[in-house]
Order: sequence, then C-alpha cells, then structure tokens
Amino acid sequence: MTERSDSGDTESGSYVEAGEFDRDTRYLTTRITADGRDGYPVESGRYRLVAARACPWANRALIVRRLLGLEDALSLGLCGPTHDRRSWTFDLDPGRVDPVLGIERLQEAYFARDPGYARGITVPAIVEVGSGRVVTNDFAQMTLDLSTEWTRFHRPGAPDLYPEALRAEIDEVADLVYRDVNNGVYRCGFAGSQDAYDAAFDSLFARLDWLEERLATRRYLVGDTITEADVRLFTTLARFDAVYHGHFKCNRGLLTSFPALWGYARDLFTTPGFGDTIDFVQIKQHYYLVHTDINPTRIVPKGPDLSGWLTPHGRDVLGGRPFGDGTPPPPPHATEQVPSAHTPLAA
Amino acid sequence: MTERSDSGDTESGSYVEAGEFDRDTRYLTTRITADGRDGYPVESGRYRLVAARACPWANRALIVRRLLGLEDALSLGLCGPTHDRRSWTFDLDPGRVDPVLGIERLQEAYFARDPGYARGITVPAIVEVGSGRVVTNDFAQMTLDLSTEWTRFHRPGAPDLYPEALRAEIDEVADLVYRDVNNGVYRCGFAGSQDAYDAAFDSLFARLDWLEERLATRRYLVGDTITEADVRLFTTLARFDAVYHGHFKCNRGLLTSFPALWGYARDLFTTPGFGDTIDFVQIKQHYYLVHTDINPTRIVPKGPDLSGWLTPHGRDVLGGRPFGDGTPPPPPHATEQVPSAHTPLAA
Repeated sequence: MTERSDSGDTESGSYVEAGEFDRDTRYLTTRITADGRDGYPVESGRYRLVAARACPWANRALIVRRLLGLEDALSLGLCGPTHDRRSWTFDLDPGRVDPVLGIERLQEAYFARDPGYARGITVPAIVEVGSGRVVTNDFAQMTLDLSTEWTRFHRPGAPDLYPEALRAEIDEVADLVYRDVNNGVYRCGFAGSQDAYDAAFDSLFARLDWLEERLATRRYLVGDTITEADVRLFTTLARFDAVYHGHFKCNRGLLTSFPALWGYARDLFTTPGFGDTIDFVQIKQHYYLVHTDINPTRIVPKGPDLSGWLTPHGRDVLGGRPFGDGTPPPPPHATEQVPSAHTPLAA
Repeated sequence: MTERSDSGDTESGSYVEAGEFDRDTRYLTTRITADGRDGYPVESGRYRLVAARACPWANRALIVRRLLGLEDALSLGLCGPTHDRRSWTFDLDPGRVDPVLGIERLQEAYFARDPGYARGITVPAIVEVGSGRVVTNDFAQMTLDLSTEWTRFHRPGAPDLYPEALRAEIDEVADLVYRDVNNGVYRCGFAGSQDAYDAAFDSLFARLDWLEERLATRRYLVGDTITEADVRLFTTLARFDAVYHGHFKCNRGLLTSFPALWGYARDLFTTPGFGDTIDFVQIKQHYYLVHTDINPTRIVPKGPDLSGWLTPHGRDVLGGRPFGDGTPPPPPHATEQVPSAHTPLAA
C-alpha cells in the first residue's frame, strides 16, 4: 500500500511489516520541572501551550490544564482544525498569526528549537515564549508534569489526577488504553493492509469490551476519583462516533452501543473541564479534510446526532468523588470557550 | 470534483450542477409480457435473470422471484461482488463462466443486444438464453412484471405484491422512497460537493423520519400485507448499517436507532424470501472494493455486528397478514443458498 512518511495527522508514522501503522514516538522530551533540571523551570507566563481542539493528544493537555486551573500560568494558542503536510497553522487567529508567539505556522517554533527538525510537527507543544522555541511535544509526559511539577500554580481545589498511591495502576491501564484504543483507532484507520486492519480492529474492540466490563461497576477507571487515566480514555471516546466509527472503520458498534462506556463518556462530558474542551465541528473537519488518502472527496459528514451526549448518564449511583477532596473548575475563560454551534453543551 | 462517467457501481451516472449525483436512468425497457407484445413472451426456461447479491437493485428481483416461486421458470445467474469499470463478471462460477449463458462478463450479453451499447452494464438484467441478448435491465419495471405478467408460473400460495386496488399508493410511496432513500444514499455517497451531500443527507433522514412514523403503527408500508413497496425499501435498509452509514456518510444515526424501521427491517429479514437473499459479506466487499474513489485503501470493515438482525422484532402485535391469502415460500434451492458464513440467518 502507499507509504506514509507523514501521517497527515497530528504526528508522523510509517508502515512496517504487513501494513501495520507504526507511530513515530520520538518526541522532544525536554521537561519543564519545578527544579528546572532540564533548564526549563516551571514559571508563570514563561510558556505557551499550543494545541488544536481537533487533536485527541492535545485534548488531554486542554483538559488537564482546565481541571488544574493552569490557565493563567500557562497561556494557550490554538491552531485551526486543518493543516497541510508541513504544519499546523494559526489560521483561526486575526491575521492568521498567533498573537503571543507571532508565528503563522507551528513549524517555526520547531525550527527555532532545531533548524534541522525532520519529524512530525505535532500538537500539543509547549513553547517558551521568549525564545520562541518548542520545549516539549511529549504529550504523555506533558500532562503528568502539569499534575506533578506545576503544583505551585494549581488552583485551590485542583484535583490530584496522578495520586502517588495509584500511579502504577494508572500507568498500567493507560498503557493498555494507549495501545489498543488511543492509538488503536489510528491503527485501524491507517492500516496499510486488510490483515493489519483486522488485527487492530480485534484489539480495539476486545479492549473496549474489557473497559465496558471494568466500568460497569466503577465510576472511574482507577480509584474512585477522576485521574489521568480517565482523561486519556475520554479524548478518544469523544471522537469515536463522530469520526473513528466511519472514517477509521471502527464499526463493530457505536460508542452508544456500550452502555457503561457510553454512560461513562457522558458523565465525563458533562463534568466541567471535559466537555467544554470538545469542539465537534473542528474534530470532524480535521479528520475528514486532512486525511485525503482515506477521504479523497473531503466531504465532512453531517452526522452523528450529538444530542445524546446530554442525556442523563445515571452514573452517580456508582458513587465516586469526581474531584476527590477538590472542587470542579469554574467555567472556561470567555476567550477559550468553544463556539456554541460546535458543541451540544450550549444547547 | 472528479467527473463520474461511470459510477463504478451497478449503474452509471454523472455530476450535474453543484456536484449532485445524477443517476443515468436510461434503461433497456423492452418488456417480457404474457402477451409477448414486445416480442418476448413469458415462457419457462427461455430467460435467465442475472443478478448480484451485492446490488440493492438486483436484490429486489431476487426477493420477488423467491416470494412468487419463479425459480424454476426463470433461472438465476449470479455475478460476484466486485467488477471492474467495464462489467460485472461471473467470477464465482467454475471457470469464471456462467454455466448457462457461457459468458465471462455480463457486458457480452449487452453487446449481443446492441454492439454499440454505451451505457452502464447493470444488474439486474434478464437475458434471453437462446440469443444471449439482454432483454431488459429496467429494474423498476422488472419486478412489477414478475408480479403481473409472470402469473402463469407463480407458485401456489404466491402473494400479490402489486394488488390493483393499492397500486396508486404503492407507486406513490415507492417514488418517495426511491428519490430520498434508495437513490438518496447514493446521492450522499457520490456527492461531488459538500452542499450536494448536505442536501441529500437532509432529504434522506427526513424521509427516514417520515417512514419511522408511518411504520410505528402499521406493519407494512401499504395495506396490511407485504407489497412491492416493502421489497424496495428493504433492500436499502439491509445495507444501511453495513455500508451506507459509514461508506456513504449516511451517519445521522444507524438503522438501529429507528425503533420502528429497525423492527420492520428485522421482521422482513426473518420472513422467508427476504433475509435468505442477503449476503452481507458480498455487500460489504462490493461497495468497499469497487468504489476506490471514496475508499482508496480498499479495506473492508469488519463491522458491524450483525447479530441484532435476529433479535425479536415484536412487530406481530401490529397485526397484518404477511402473505395475505397466500403462504410463505419454501426455503431457497440448495444451489441458491447464501453461504452460512455470510449471513446471521445460519446462526
């Protein structure tokens, strides 16, 4: 099948044996830490998170930043839903330029870091505003560091999304979810052979069945509060029926056919900090317009009907304390609200 | 968008203004009648129906032939699920040749009729065995003629699928269903512009809503027995979740999200003569392998889960007499059974 040197998505990958999609996971792994040991200490106003509402990996950082109340310490730049083969762009901003970084293409911040940067121009990325350089695009470490290194700037009542006592279990669940679900949907959609697709499909739905069983009796994935594990699963579930079911051929059934998973997804969606980061219009535009190798017509589906996201989820009966000893975050800043036409939350 | 001179499907079409798919409905309209006024009298053994299980238009003829018990009078040739730009082929037969017509490609029977035949090589087609010529490929008239002209060869207990007293209503309903549903799904999938797609999508789901309401209180579309109108709607519903929802972006919701329509579809599916003509494997292969302009990877989805087709439909409470004063047809001939792995009916 066709060689995929750049996935055309938020990250790059290539085909290995038997047409299996292989994500390029070589990220810029510099860390922003409380002690600044990599040269980048946590500091208010020094960094800018660059994300795109369309992207499930960036969506994690958007949620965690909201839940922890880091909006004032870590500003946000948002790329539009589509991009060309080279870069995400700030085409939603006035003049198509990020007002803080002063760049049109995220690529510029990667080249400021490394003029020879040859890997995918991905979101989320954290950019040092002063130097204009990407510090890190390691999405998996990024949210953990927001939880554990940025504590000085957490809002009062911020939840502990990565509690020490549960880290082993969170990591274990998150690894399985990453392999079979978060990345699994991409392995279905970008499969270069029928066999690779079939295998990815089976792993995905076996894992969803496993999650369905796990979530039938517990409100959250690990412990009785929202953790990093829930954030990571949620961003894929939010895109499942809108994109992955049809576009990536993840069609054994819709998310709505899994009672526990669908209830769990709605529970989180209506929890402050989750659904208010979801822009279904941008999500659909991104996948259907960017991946011309699997949707050459670039027609964006009108469906699915999204009103179900706001139906009662009934998950309260399972108990749980969403924010543990903390509190829900306040509504998003006016400048960071998803347009009402793009989300059922405004209905 | 790309010009579509041949739809790559079972019939040809082109794009008109604003990217709307326009089906070429110029068929060979010679009729096989009881009085033989077009030179082709109804006669046992003289003709061969050429169909493909994949094709919804051919599926109508397969169902009507079964319901009326015409198997012995009108033999059946089956093309495989895929074809190239030129023709459907008999690639499922030994030696890839139809055992009765002695041809590899259906095209040959069209050229025997008209050496300059330049329109789509479509199924269903009725071929005169002796001359090897296509007599008609007018799928809409074909099933009506099986009901009204082939009466001499109907089995005892054959239902009246086109009762005189109901013809006006059947025609009226069938016209709306054709425009918005049968052909409407193609207008979604083959739309050459976002606007054309959006309009087709709205018409499709408005009509499905209308059908949902109509079928909430009546078991069948017209009258209280199965008619031609039901046959025509059924063949599209049978393909809806398996193909049209994802491949043609008909994704406001699955068929399973319409309680009455989904019950109605299951009721018919489990009625002898309907479900036993449905080959889900061939249906999926056809659409996903042939339409490379909308599925360039040619990967065939593993989903959806088909087990729901056999869940109780509960439609009996609406009354109705499926076959009127007639009886259900016996099981299909052994040579005409859908492979058990291709249908949930064998489960």
